[in-house]
Amino acid sequence: MTDQTFRPEARAPRGFADKRAATLRAERRIVEAVSRVYESWGFEPLDTGAFEYADALGKFLPDSDRPNEGVFALQDDDEQWMALRYDLTAPLARFAAQNWETLPKPYRRYAFGPVWRNEKPGPGRFREFIQCDADTVGSARPEADAEIIAMAAAGLKAAGLPEGGAVLKFSNRKILDGVLETAGVSDGRQKLIVLRALDKLDRLGREGVADLLGKGRLDESGAFTPGAELSAASAGLVLDFLDMAVAGAPLDQLANAAFAKAEVALEGFRELEAIVAALKGLGVDEASARFDPSIVRGLEYYTGAVFEADLQVETLDEKGKPIRFGSVGGGGRYDDLVARFTGERIPATGFSFGVSRLAAALKAAGREVAGENRGPVVVIAFDQSRMADYFAVAAELRTGGVPAEVYLGASGMKAQMKYADRRLSPAAVIIGEDEFAAGTATVKDLDLGRDLARGMTDNAAWRAERPGQQTVARADLVAVVRKIVDAAQ
Amino acid sequence: MTDQTFRPEARAPRGFADKRAATLRAERRIVEAVSRVYESWGFEPLDTGAFEYADALGKFLPDSDRPNEGVFALQDDDEQWMALRYDLTAPLARFAAQNWETLPKPYRRYAFGPVWRNEKPGPGRFREFIQCDADTVGSARPEADAEIIAMAAAGLKAAGLPEGGAVLKFSNRKILDGVLETAGVSDGRQKLIVLRALDKLDRLGREGVADLLGKGRLDESGAFTPGAELSAASAGLVLDFLDMAVAGAPLDQLANAAFAKAEVALEGFRELEAIVAALKGLGVDEASARFDPSIVRGLEYYTGAVFEADLQVETLDEKGKPIRFGSVGGGGRYDDLVARFTGERIPATGFSFGVSRLAAALKAAGREVAGENRGPVVVIAFDQSRMADYFAVAAELRTGGVPAEVYLGASGMKAQMKYADRRLSPAAVIIGEDEFAAGTATVKDLDLGRDLARGMTDNAAWRAERPGQQTVARADLVAVVRKIVDAAQ
Repeated sequence: MTDQTFRPEARAPRGFADKRAATLRAERRIVEAVSRVYESWGFEPLDTGAFEYADALGKFLPDSDRPNEGVFALQDDDEQWMALRYDLTAPLARFAAQNWETLPKPYRRYAFGPVWRNEKPGPGRFREFIQCDADTVGSARPEADAEIIAMAAAGLKAAGLPEGGAVLKFSNRKILDGVLETAGVSDGRQKLIVLRALDKLDRLGREGVADLLGKGRLDESGAFTPGAELSAASAGLVLDFLDMAVAGAPLDQLANAAFAKAEVALEGFRELEAIVAALKGLGVDEASARFDPSIVRGLEYYTGAVFEADLQVETLDEKGKPIRFGSVGGGGRYDDLVARFTGERIPATGFSFGVSRLAAALKAAGREVAGENRGPVVVIAFDQSRMADYFAVAAELRTGGVPAEVYLGASGMKAQMKYADRRLSPAAVIIGEDEFAAGTATVKDLDLGRDLARGMTDNAAWRAERPGQQTVARADLVAVVRKIVDAAQ
Repeated sequence: MTDQTFRPEARAPRGFADKRAATLRAERRIVEAVSRVYESWGFEPLDTGAFEYADALGKFLPDSDRPNEGVFALQDDDEQWMALRYDLTAPLARFAAQNWETLPKPYRRYAFGPVWRNEKPGPGRFREFIQCDADTVGSARPEADAEIIAMAAAGLKAAGLPEGGAVLKFSNRKILDGVLETAGVSDGRQKLIVLRALDKLDRLGREGVADLLGKGRLDESGAFTPGAELSAASAGLVLDFLDMAVAGAPLDQLANAAFAKAEVALEGFRELEAIVAALKGLGVDEASARFDPSIVRGLEYYTGAVFEADLQVETLDEKGKPIRFGSVGGGGRYDDLVARFTGERIPATGFSFGVSRLAAALKAAGREVAGENRGPVVVIAFDQSRMADYFAVAAELRTGGVPAEVYLGASGMKAQMKYADRRLSPAAVIIGEDEFAAGTATVKDLDLGRDLARGMTDNAAWRAERPGQQTVARADLVAVVRKIVDAAQ
């Protein structure tokens, strides 16, 4: 094999990242904490496969020139198109439709795992990332929405956000439906353009949104996005609503506006009132979850309540400028998604957040867990004829609850100490012929070395009670090492 | 959306499974327990993406007629072929080659996650499954092999196997190399056929293996597999080795055989002796890990030690016939895999096991964790105007450490009780107008109902101290429910 002439270049595909220990541990900690919360609220795990049939994903047969538009698709042996899931909602809708008769109803499930998007990769823009979702399928009650909102808030808190670190903002798509009805907009395409324009207010500004309600918008790059071409009067009504929403108009003020007379808007207000009452019952305060009429969510499939989790964590970038993380997730009610398969309307509501994005926010907010990424204690391979003995020492340390390994490379003492330092090992254990003969072991406190290097501790003051290196009786080894490990935690 | 005419059928793609709570919890428990063990041995997590470039996987550009031979492959925008990983070893080799300069050496990592194989699906044959691997890259020492063997044994035990539930059997590919050298077999293709034939001894029997060493083998279906076409004398030497291996010849007996004079075989024996010594140092007894010359492993890329984890768990199938689970994983030393990329030989060794397969074996062996799949306590939605109050009760239970939910469907009492029973809820809480007025709550012990139904408890004897239904003061509710929950655990 080594004499081959073709050598592939070792590189990960574009837009796919290798995740190492620190990243993985942070992401797993989030997923585990959130899973515990979701389970305690009565949600059970579900894992569907990576692939769905393309028709089940709501994509139609891709044309042969661009079979991968937006998704990673391929044709199976039997000619059917399959695609890697691009979210966890579409597979849930398929699963619920397929198993509806035998599921306990309402069906409450959570899920986490990778999703794939075939988009142009770039710095920080990946084509594979981890999502974490919770959904209730089979309940039309606004209380089901409230529960998802409250649970999402509890989950984010459990993941490590500080008090007030995230707020769940919610509204109801039916209010916007009322606005559009009052404005005389009934065309599906126009509605969708309005929806997406409002959802992008943060990025486009009021003027950009206004352009998109009218003829369209030319962006800085010269690209033109066609608008909804509403009449001036209709666009005016939508912008009036937008202004009220941005001003954070409370529920009762909105309920007195012109558009609020539409039956669908009234229904939206009733649902919002039930959500507010349920949140109160759950003991969720306004700092954690509150009505915000500016929330619309860009996805067409929402039919009622919509919500968004906004991070309130503010941090500084390398240049000292504050960064706001903004939305880390969102969701809403989608009563028609299962009906795509069955024709029968099955109400559903759910919340989804990006695990990597939350991990990045927690890291930026300094919420990393101390000691999470420390390495094992390294038993130095000092004498090659004593490897079995070193293994016995490492086994003894592990039995004593201390992660430990024997150095297994081919290098000498100096390189071994460097290795232990790079692994962020708390300590190294050295046993040479003298120590074996005397029944002792030498322990080097590497944490101390790092603390000294960082100026976090004073050499002279510590030296007495925290020796950098000490020779101890073999029988005391585990206890001494434990003390060093525990001191740093 | 509901008025569309096209309705896709709701079905998962062939060979992909939806995993529900019981399966997922069992698999996650395994992965978490094994991860803890691997971390304590100094291995750090790594997660590479789902895709690799096809050339990095060791597959060459698939021909256009069958682009998916064995893997799920597709062409990226820039014309490069990518394929979903079919194991976790190939991505590790790519990662190690790509990052070798900056990694601590030896690099010790573990990984778990799905792998994909584009094979013909069938009952129990999936095209996506979870593997869990641990590897040391950059150590040529036999002690690194010993460590992997011992750690694999510790991991399987931590996953829930009973004492003696698995044995790690190991040998060294170099012994077989010595046999082949002595037999005058040097052709790569012939060697590979011999290797695969020996690896399939269990399935083919001695005669089937002998056929494959010679002209070839006709199986029951009439399909012909070409043989290695060894001479009678050469085949005889290989079969002599096979007979000794099957008889479980110890290391010193093999070392006296004719083929043992080959230099490569001597090297194999020296390595095996070092492995045995290291295992002794680690306190691993022969019941957990032992030399077994019949282990060869079918993969071409192994260059030294090879090992296999055999489950000793025996259970009965539905017809009362004993099932042996056999191999749940394996591995070995592969010193040439990273060199595919770099040309530089980087020694490596590792172990991989199938998580679903181990979960199935644990289940068959009755090693499921009691109570793992119980549902939440269900607060019955008795009075529609009291939903916010029911939410407060559920929140109170959760705060008290009891998973709980409010029923959010539209059905009446009877269906709600049935729902709670289907969720395997330990208890249901009923609060109607009378209870609200009196400041009480009614608790129904659903565990008791299930125990009675299974004949696991006696109605009369229990009734006194474990009432099926009781009305308690609201202030005592959490304590009473906790008692029911704890009683069953």
